[in-house]
Amino acid sequence: MSAIDFACTPDPPYYAVIFTSLRKPGDNGYAETADRMVALAARQPGFLGIEAVRGGDGFGITVSYWASEAAIAAWKRDLEHAAARKRGRLEWYEHFELRVAKVERAYAGPRGER
Amino acid sequence: MSAIDFACTPDPPYYAVIFTSLRKPGDNGYAETADRMVALAARQPGFLGIEAVRGGDGFGITVSYWASEAAIAAWKRDLEHAAARKRGRLEWYEHFELRVAKVERAYAGPRGER
Repeated sequence: MSAIDFACTPDPPYYAVIFTSLRKPGDNGYAETADRMVALAARQPGFLGIEAVRGGDGFGITVSYWASEAAIAAWKRDLEHAAARKRGRLEWYEHFELRVAKVERAYAGPRGER
Repeated sequence: MSAIDFACTPDPPYYAVIFTSLRKPGDNGYAETADRMVALAARQPGFLGIEAVRGGDGFGITVSYWASEAAIAAWKRDLEHAAARKRGRLEWYEHFELRVAKVERAYAGPRGER
């Protein structure tokens, strides 16, 4: 996934999973798993897109977009995803906050303003 | 604002404004205005916190959290904020996407897991 990638989402309503995290130092297999999770998520029914940035200080924000709560729940049940989340808690993240939100309104600009 | 700052938000429901943007090259007064906007937003009634990251490639995600839709609307009407948004469209952003979402569920871990 390129870092400069806006998610091309449909008109609201849809769901956003806002994942804010602080990485521990060292890769420890994180990058490979993160890429794999994006590829796997993108194949899930109801996946709408993802936007992610991490700063050099290890603080990052990833927002994934989903058609429904059911799509988020199904992705959460994926076994490979569950295993990655467990490694995240134990090995990769100093801390994280995860918020599930319903997108009600959206705007864009200046390119393709709507 | 330190880059490594998790927003300390209350139990849901509350609102998130997800602002994804690609900066044009050069500062052109952006950093100063961005700091000023965070300070100004923090004084608004209903402001709950903000989380922000920008990568070296100019792609960034800022999520601000608000108690209500009314609080977001009041902040949007602030004249200094409106002027900054106009400069953003004209001078600072190659492109942006703004999404207003209602946070329905939230989790945290491993530090202060809840």
